[in-house]
Amino acid sequence: MGLVVQKYGGSSVADAEGIKRVAKRIVDTKKDGHQVVVVVSAMGDTTDELIDLAEQVSPIPAGREFDMLLTAGERISMALLAMAIKNLGHEAQSFTGSQAGVITDSVHNKARIIDVTPGRIRTALDEGNIAIVAGFQGVSQDKKDITTLGRGGSDTTAVALAAALDAEVCEIYTDVDGVFTADPRVVKKAKKIDWISFEDMLELAASGSKVLLHRCVEYARRYNIPIHVRSSFSGLQGTWVSNEPQGAQKVEQAIISGVAHDTSEAKITVVGVPDKPGEAAAIFRAVADAEINIDMIVQNVSAASTGLTDISFTLPKAEGRKALDELEKAKSAIGFDSLRYDDQIGKISLVGAGMKTNPGVTADFFKALSDAGVNIELISTSEIRISVVTRADDVNEAVRAVHTAFGLDSDSDEAVVYGGTGR
Amino acid sequence: MGLVVQKYGGSSVADAEGIKRVAKRIVDTKKDGHQVVVVVSAMGDTTDELIDLAEQVSPIPAGREFDMLLTAGERISMALLAMAIKNLGHEAQSFTGSQAGVITDSVHNKARIIDVTPGRIRTALDEGNIAIVAGFQGVSQDKKDITTLGRGGSDTTAVALAAALDAEVCEIYTDVDGVFTADPRVVKKAKKIDWISFEDMLELAASGSKVLLHRCVEYARRYNIPIHVRSSFSGLQGTWVSNEPQGAQKVEQAIISGVAHDTSEAKITVVGVPDKPGEAAAIFRAVADAEINIDMIVQNVSAASTGLTDISFTLPKAEGRKALDELEKAKSAIGFDSLRYDDQIGKISLVGAGMKTNPGVTADFFKALSDAGVNIELISTSEIRISVVTRADDVNEAVRAVHTAFGLDSDSDEAVVYGGTGR
Repeated sequence: MGLVVQKYGGSSVADAEGIKRVAKRIVDTKKDGHQVVVVVSAMGDTTDELIDLAEQVSPIPAGREFDMLLTAGERISMALLAMAIKNLGHEAQSFTGSQAGVITDSVHNKARIIDVTPGRIRTALDEGNIAIVAGFQGVSQDKKDITTLGRGGSDTTAVALAAALDAEVCEIYTDVDGVFTADPRVVKKAKKIDWISFEDMLELAASGSKVLLHRCVEYARRYNIPIHVRSSFSGLQGTWVSNEPQGAQKVEQAIISGVAHDTSEAKITVVGVPDKPGEAAAIFRAVADAEINIDMIVQNVSAASTGLTDISFTLPKAEGRKALDELEKAKSAIGFDSLRYDDQIGKISLVGAGMKTNPGVTADFFKALSDAGVNIELISTSEIRISVVTRADDVNEAVRAVHTAFGLDSDSDEAVVYGGTGR
Repeated sequence: MGLVVQKYGGSSVADAEGIKRVAKRIVDTKKDGHQVVVVVSAMGDTTDELIDLAEQVSPIPAGREFDMLLTAGERISMALLAMAIKNLGHEAQSFTGSQAGVITDSVHNKARIIDVTPGRIRTALDEGNIAIVAGFQGVSQDKKDITTLGRGGSDTTAVALAAALDAEVCEIYTDVDGVFTADPRVVKKAKKIDWISFEDMLELAASGSKVLLHRCVEYARRYNIPIHVRSSFSGLQGTWVSNEPQGAQKVEQAIISGVAHDTSEAKITVVGVPDKPGEAAAIFRAVADAEINIDMIVQNVSAASTGLTDISFTLPKAEGRKALDELEKAKSAIGFDSLRYDDQIGKISLVGAGMKTNPGVTADFFKALSDAGVNIELISTSEIRISVVTRADDVNEAVRAVHTAFGLDSDSDEAVVYGGTGR
């Protein structure tokens, strides 16, 4: 029986009852003979409440102080969880990100983990404790300041600790039963996936699946840490993400893993870019220097008459303003004509390892969209994914059409269980 | 212009408006040319809400985890305060107790400061920052665990930092205008004291005055740090506590500083103690080992016929159960007959440096109580204080009688301003 890292999200520890239920599940794991490390997020809406307070005192909260503020949320939940476990007669100790040895760079609000030195966690485990660790936070290597890891930070904390402690599995407890072939709120017949490879999961995450975030899966893949995504309410087997199928369940690997969609992005088109070497690099350097992650990039064929081309890319809506500002600043240096901004777009992606060995997949995908009357604006492909950008209004219809066309619909007419408590 | 340490309590930073008002006051101090270090408590009811959550998950919260939980409150308020200051165009950085170098022993929930190493604070000040420090918390020297300092911890943090940084004054901002000759809720004619010596303030604090706690005054006296207790609402001159009168105001040192009262204590009587050497030591060793602070101690004259005596002492009501348990455990070793517990007592104390040179003070004190029909149960005196224990019901009447008898009543018929916002 090895070491298990479990991560519980904010909805699992939203109140005292939730904390007590989670404490019981942790103790059960310990009773099974495992060493247990638990990563916990802030309770329910705590983080939103803290952000709201910050906005009341300052319209533009400062990075360092904002991180100091937000990390209070995990400090509360982890201490309460440790107390609840001790109340069940087991030893537990809680640790801040800093105490757990989560060392990051100094980019406040979205720091990256650069090292994990879990000496205190190891000691706590050796002394028979369950170790509770604050998710989402670390300490900067150079300034010893408190940092936060940004979106999906708690999942990443869990996987990073699992890697540093050589855990046998990292269990991500959430309020859904696992990863589905599509978002069950959009596709009623979506099925839970029993097993999915790291590569397909990465593509799903990059394409809008919210269950696991890209950076967490990437970390797990690099260190080969199996992830088990499961419900903290039902206790059922969820979805295993790994190199090899794990667990007792029978695994049937579908060619197509699932359909993801994303309406959180916007599209920027840089109009009238001189078609010469270095132009695209200049554009994306300007955006990258502002720490903005871009997604799809498409460059039109240059018009021979003008020697000018257009370059479009998608990026999170929240970063749209900043990207436009950065590009505007670099306008004369880059030498483009104008910028267009469109935040009414949606993205649909089909993900599956078998895609490149099945040449009909791309054709079937476009046919399904066409039959559903969905117009395509941008296309991007990888070895195991096809993504298209459409109008935001068309996204749900497009996802359902593709899900059905690729035989992913559940045979049963019963609604898929989404969330154990009807949340 | 030297360095000023300011401490703001929870009621001063109860909401976003309060935080912004405090930020403005801090910036004004900085603009006057001072270096400013601010110690802040948790917002309003935050600590009570966290305690409530803890009680929901575990009836007996564990020391280490309880400290981890409670310290989240200051982390929130200090980060918000730093943001609010930055929003006013001044640089500010917040620091946890650990980051500020507040080193304590390992007694969770009421740790003692054993060293202050404010290197990071000094650096922040040298770089032009206002330093915001979490009150009430530190880090244990041996285990590097988060600790809390217990009651009055934030005031003590402020004084300890003032001493370590060689500040010219430690300003304690609160919701009253200063230290009064008696509790203005009980004595309408109580007067604000302009200046009081460390010694008299120590006696007032030990006797139930809530404005400053004993440990904080003791720390300030040891390092000769002048304390200025003042309102965060009115901005008026408050009460200076120091060796020498400070500030611009004219000081008239009264013989009697004030009347304090306390109804938070209980009385334990150990009945039938053998009257031989070592008995009292054994009793108070048992209590001290449980980290219980006792206050007044009175031993009756031994009855010659039995060789037995009774020993009474007072202690905080909250510690009553624990003290009784400890004494019961040591019953056969000590050899007493029984224990009596009484939590319906009150204590009235008269404090003043001139007391020993005015032999009539004690007589006048007892006469005032007698005229008010108040029965005395225990008496204890020091060079600058007389305290008596009475029934709790008699306390308010006794305080008013003594306040009038010693000429402390304000000449004006106007009500004393108590709290700047009517809180």
